[in-house]
Amino acid sequence: MALVVIGGVAAGLSAAARARRIDPRLEIVVLEKGPAISYGACGLPYFVEGRVRQASQLVVYTPEYFRKERKIDVRTGARVVAISHPRREVKLESGARVAYGKLVIATGARCDTSGIQGAGQPHVFTLHTLDDGERMRAFLRERRPKRAVVIGGGYIGVEAADALRRNGVGVTLLERSQHLLLRDDAVFSAAVRKQLEAHGVEVRCGVAANSIEADRVGDVDCDMVVVAAGFRPNVELAAEAGIEIGRTGAIRTDERMETNLLGVYAAGDCAEATHLVTGRPTYIPLGATANKGGRVAGANAAGGRERFAGIVGTSIAGIFGTGFATTGFSVAQARAEGFSPVAARIEAYARPRYFPGAKTTVELVADRNSRRLIGGSVIGEEGAAGRIGVIATALGSRMRVDEFEQLDLAYSPPFSPVWDPLLIAAQQLLKEM
Amino acid sequence: MALVVIGGVAAGLSAAARARRIDPRLEIVVLEKGPAISYGACGLPYFVEGRVRQASQLVVYTPEYFRKERKIDVRTGARVVAISHPRREVKLESGARVAYGKLVIATGARCDTSGIQGAGQPHVFTLHTLDDGERMRAFLRERRPKRAVVIGGGYIGVEAADALRRNGVGVTLLERSQHLLLRDDAVFSAAVRKQLEAHGVEVRCGVAANSIEADRVGDVDCDMVVVAAGFRPNVELAAEAGIEIGRTGAIRTDERMETNLLGVYAAGDCAEATHLVTGRPTYIPLGATANKGGRVAGANAAGGRERFAGIVGTSIAGIFGTGFATTGFSVAQARAEGFSPVAARIEAYARPRYFPGAKTTVELVADRNSRRLIGGSVIGEEGAAGRIGVIATALGSRMRVDEFEQLDLAYSPPFSPVWDPLLIAAQQLLKEM
Repeated sequence: MALVVIGGVAAGLSAAARARRIDPRLEIVVLEKGPAISYGACGLPYFVEGRVRQASQLVVYTPEYFRKERKIDVRTGARVVAISHPRREVKLESGARVAYGKLVIATGARCDTSGIQGAGQPHVFTLHTLDDGERMRAFLRERRPKRAVVIGGGYIGVEAADALRRNGVGVTLLERSQHLLLRDDAVFSAAVRKQLEAHGVEVRCGVAANSIEADRVGDVDCDMVVVAAGFRPNVELAAEAGIEIGRTGAIRTDERMETNLLGVYAAGDCAEATHLVTGRPTYIPLGATANKGGRVAGANAAGGRERFAGIVGTSIAGIFGTGFATTGFSVAQARAEGFSPVAARIEAYARPRYFPGAKTTVELVADRNSRRLIGGSVIGEEGAAGRIGVIATALGSRMRVDEFEQLDLAYSPPFSPVWDPLLIAAQQLLKEM
Repeated sequence: MALVVIGGVAAGLSAAARARRIDPRLEIVVLEKGPAISYGACGLPYFVEGRVRQASQLVVYTPEYFRKERKIDVRTGARVVAISHPRREVKLESGARVAYGKLVIATGARCDTSGIQGAGQPHVFTLHTLDDGERMRAFLRERRPKRAVVIGGGYIGVEAADALRRNGVGVTLLERSQHLLLRDDAVFSAAVRKQLEAHGVEVRCGVAANSIEADRVGDVDCDMVVVAAGFRPNVELAAEAGIEIGRTGAIRTDERMETNLLGVYAAGDCAEATHLVTGRPTYIPLGATANKGGRVAGANAAGGRERFAGIVGTSIAGIFGTGFATTGFSVAQARAEGFSPVAARIEAYARPRYFPGAKTTVELVADRNSRRLIGGSVIGEEGAAGRIGVIATALGSRMRVDEFEQLDLAYSPPFSPVWDPLLIAAQQLLKEM
């Protein structure tokens, strides 16, 4: 019986490709509702910006490639409208039915604009699919908007603001909460805000945008709107089929990515993952997680026996050339999770003083009781991705601050100072504990 | 009774400064044989290159600063010629004696040119002290040498070759072994060689230079020679005082950095450290290790109770703009240490395909029995320091490849591909296991 995968982007195609590796003879069908598969959605802001010239560059593999090279039956425009697990079949919008032996649900997420009046207007965009990107790029080229409002200060919103600004568009960014880049950390959010403002983006936090007019959002005049808020996992299909939805609102799975229905797996932006710092399910939809979870789901659906241990919630955004990276929990988030957090934040040169180079800001958060590192953030023009990777690795291995402080990191003047900013932050944190 | 520190560069001053923090009233004396203290020796190649304009920029703190701000009695030109532990005193070349209650030995290492005939000629240089750097820079400016021979393909040799080439000097690098950057790894060494050759450095491995003529070394014509080989720990003072020297040839200490003589500590380039992968003493003299070990030695000498867990041997060199980084063991080194190594080496783009960016090479080495990661290397124009830091962190926490493969690293197109090269290497390594 076939392995059917619902969804043909990150998690779905990772699952299908991995299943093929595990079982060269398995019949594998991928059902993608949209016209394109296997695109790098995280690259959309750079296509809007113009740095990526063609939307097609974001497509990693075509359906033809999968059919010919991997013997995977990829069908686009194939929207699944129901799963009948007792019958082991899915029903398509066209009325067709596809039988499955094993099922991987990789339905992703959507940008839910239903709470915003006027979101259907032609000057209003989301930035979730290849189509969204192409529409926005065409609008920029043809209509030459002068002022845009971006609703939502998460990753997509901030990256969209950057991309629009670089196209000469005036941008006002509205964020409902006080947090930017989804970090409940006033100092980090203030740094994001400062960087945006330094490059001409007006930032307003604590502003809910419930309605979009033809020429304004609230009191902000604009001729273009990007909605980058209301991210919701697509769980309706699964829920109707009796699949358990977790408290986060996303599909619950075990560490083999199997749902409560035997032989039905879920991965990617529609599914939870285990947070390695708490050991509890969490919902942090990101591309790298989708690929890892999909890979494990596909392996197990094809008869393998793999596990996806979980995530620590690492992410990074480039804002006008500076990396803003976070992992694990901020102090406020840690407290909400029941930890007794203690933190240190330092600013240090990212290279020796005799070498030109910008400063880097590092925050480390630890739990006072266990002395374990439970979160951190790094802001820097250089090295932010690498340094947050080091913190993420320490989080994943449940490292204590005492060990972290003595990490044997690479030192050489062109790359770092003899006391890496990470170690200076750890020294400071030990003083606070 | 005073804390006396022998040596006023990395380990010695870290020890003195940390001791002051622990005990604000302790009498602290630092005895430095040379004229300068607290200089970044690792910055010398960049001073030779000219990127660092003044040698004084490499000096972090002056003796005056330490005297006034830290109440530490720093004496330059104070060469210790004997330690009498029964009398708790050290004897200076001047004949003066300095009594100690606790002693920190941070005598560093030297470039031993005694095995090379003709090393005393004025066109022959080492690159170890500030004086060395100033002499070499003056020679370059005044004599405008056309061809140099660099003896030794370790970090200093390779960095010196880079610096001389950028000054328009033709360079031939001679290395006695087949290993460059001290890595017993033919593929890594070949990559170093290729990078050097691509920038006009002639590289000859398996060539021992025992004699330097006025105008040539062996059959290589030259008007300048840099000796960057024969690195030896300065242990004679300690050995004569009855301090145990380890099998590596450097001073043996416990994890409090205390030698076999109670109250006598050692740290930096003269001392061993514990290798966290083997749990055994090792001798890998590097600046970051000197600072960490010195800090712990100073804390304990001042009555604190700290430990230096050890190192994994992480280092990086920038060669004509590309980072060459290693940590832990290569396959050959791992085998020599008694492991059953299995390795994977991959080359991958350091960013998504639709983003311009160079490739990165990653090798991971694991132990087949324990499945633990025990080494790795990264070569790349960008991100090499960060990625080797991630591997080093995993080594330090005894991480298994299975966990490493699922590390939650930062993904965003300007910084990395959705499958980071580290994770691709881990996937490949799992296939080999």
